[in-house]
Amino acid sequence: MGVMDLVAKQPRIDDAFGRVLARCWEAGAAPWSVVEVIERDDGLIAANDASRYFSEPAQWSALDRWAWEQAEGRILDVGCGGGRHAVAWVARGHEVVGVDPSPAAVRITRERGAKAVVGSVPSLPEDLGRFDTIALCGDSLGLLGGPEQAPQVLSALATAAGPGARLIGTGTDPGDGADTVHADYHSWNLSRSRARGQLRLRVRDGAVATPWFDYWLASPEEFAAAVDGSAWTLETLHRDPAGSGYAVSLRK
Amino acid sequence: MGVMDLVAKQPRIDDAFGRVLARCWEAGAAPWSVVEVIERDDGLIAANDASRYFSEPAQWSALDRWAWEQAEGRILDVGCGGGRHAVAWVARGHEVVGVDPSPAAVRITRERGAKAVVGSVPSLPEDLGRFDTIALCGDSLGLLGGPEQAPQVLSALATAAGPGARLIGTGTDPGDGADTVHADYHSWNLSRSRARGQLRLRVRDGAVATPWFDYWLASPEEFAAAVDGSAWTLETLHRDPAGSGYAVSLRK
Repeated sequence: MGVMDLVAKQPRIDDAFGRVLARCWEAGAAPWSVVEVIERDDGLIAANDASRYFSEPAQWSALDRWAWEQAEGRILDVGCGGGRHAVAWVARGHEVVGVDPSPAAVRITRERGAKAVVGSVPSLPEDLGRFDTIALCGDSLGLLGGPEQAPQVLSALATAAGPGARLIGTGTDPGDGADTVHADYHSWNLSRSRARGQLRLRVRDGAVATPWFDYWLASPEEFAAAVDGSAWTLETLHRDPAGSGYAVSLRK
Repeated sequence: MGVMDLVAKQPRIDDAFGRVLARCWEAGAAPWSVVEVIERDDGLIAANDASRYFSEPAQWSALDRWAWEQAEGRILDVGCGGGRHAVAWVARGHEVVGVDPSPAAVRITRERGAKAVVGSVPSLPEDLGRFDTIALCGDSLGLLGGPEQAPQVLSALATAAGPGARLIGTGTDPGDGADTVHADYHSWNLSRSRARGQLRLRVRDGAVATPWFDYWLASPEEFAAAVDGSAWTLETLHRDPAGSGYAVSLRK
């Protein structure tokens, strides 16, 4: 049998993200103790230091620090990962419930002293109660998924929010695509009726991968348009003057 | 268009390995400055510190150090990468010619003061002259490719070897496959008429990947069988008593 006849297999679908977090946590979250490999559906691959999921507030970006400090009262931490933001809120005396699709991420967050449940947007678990703050820190505004999914996600988050609650979080502008790799991806996305910065990603680890998921890098204008017509009002959008990040605060 | 309708693209074929080496070299070969991502054709993915391709002799395994020290006279460095072994031989006064399929790897090796040409086994460039030592250090015995390819590779290397020349190198025993991930791969290989440890790999970097290539983890017995009947005679095989590595010396 020649090499040319061989067909490659796809990885098995499992909690690849949680496996990465678990090994990193077991390694004391030491820098580069574990690598997170993320694949985009155009074949782009990226390898990052997984210890960033366990970074301390002093290591966060100014935008994430700002967003994190806006939190008040009872907090829903959407995409809590290994508890990076939740544990720091608990240390400040907040009641926090983390939610993450990764069972291992939820286990780690709990071990670290914060409540957490397995789940994802828009179909959140139903018995979470009402929150004063809905948090999508650490660039988790990407979990809005895309222009089509965002209304359902914002609606589900509004249902979990008490009267006058706030939604805080950080996101990334996909930029003008001057970089060739990303420009091609943006064009490809537009050609298949997707938003320019609507990434289709999966985490790969060893023989397993997460399912593909949508992660939306919305421009501030796209984000504002998604909020418009939702149960939320955009109160503040801080843009990183030197980079592509932004932080938001919305009011229900 | 729903997520389910989307078809993922394959990465573009290019010198992904050389890109990894080049970025790492530009970063001063600092640990974890660049990550090398290797994909196996069963979907397994591995992420390694690329700086190991620029390690100094003191950092090598005892087996690699032993093999490297066996080199005499004019040396052909097969799979020279970024010149890890070649540069150290040049420092010892040897004449070395590196050969690697990666144009960027060849460029880096040259920048570091060793001769190198683009090429691969079994179809080596023809004008290399004769060598006293054929070197496959750094686990490059895997470049024998598999039981089918090995005779052609060993023959091509014998053609480049002068009378009485030696072939030195290091390899890895695939083991008994007690580990589940690898046991499944070994079984799959056997089911498609391949050697148990005959890995089909590609390096991925950003939007590009190398072509798939065969890399053979032969047991010492399989290796000896491949040498048997070739122009080479197996003189020494040192097995790591604690691990899966081995080092060999062959005589033409």
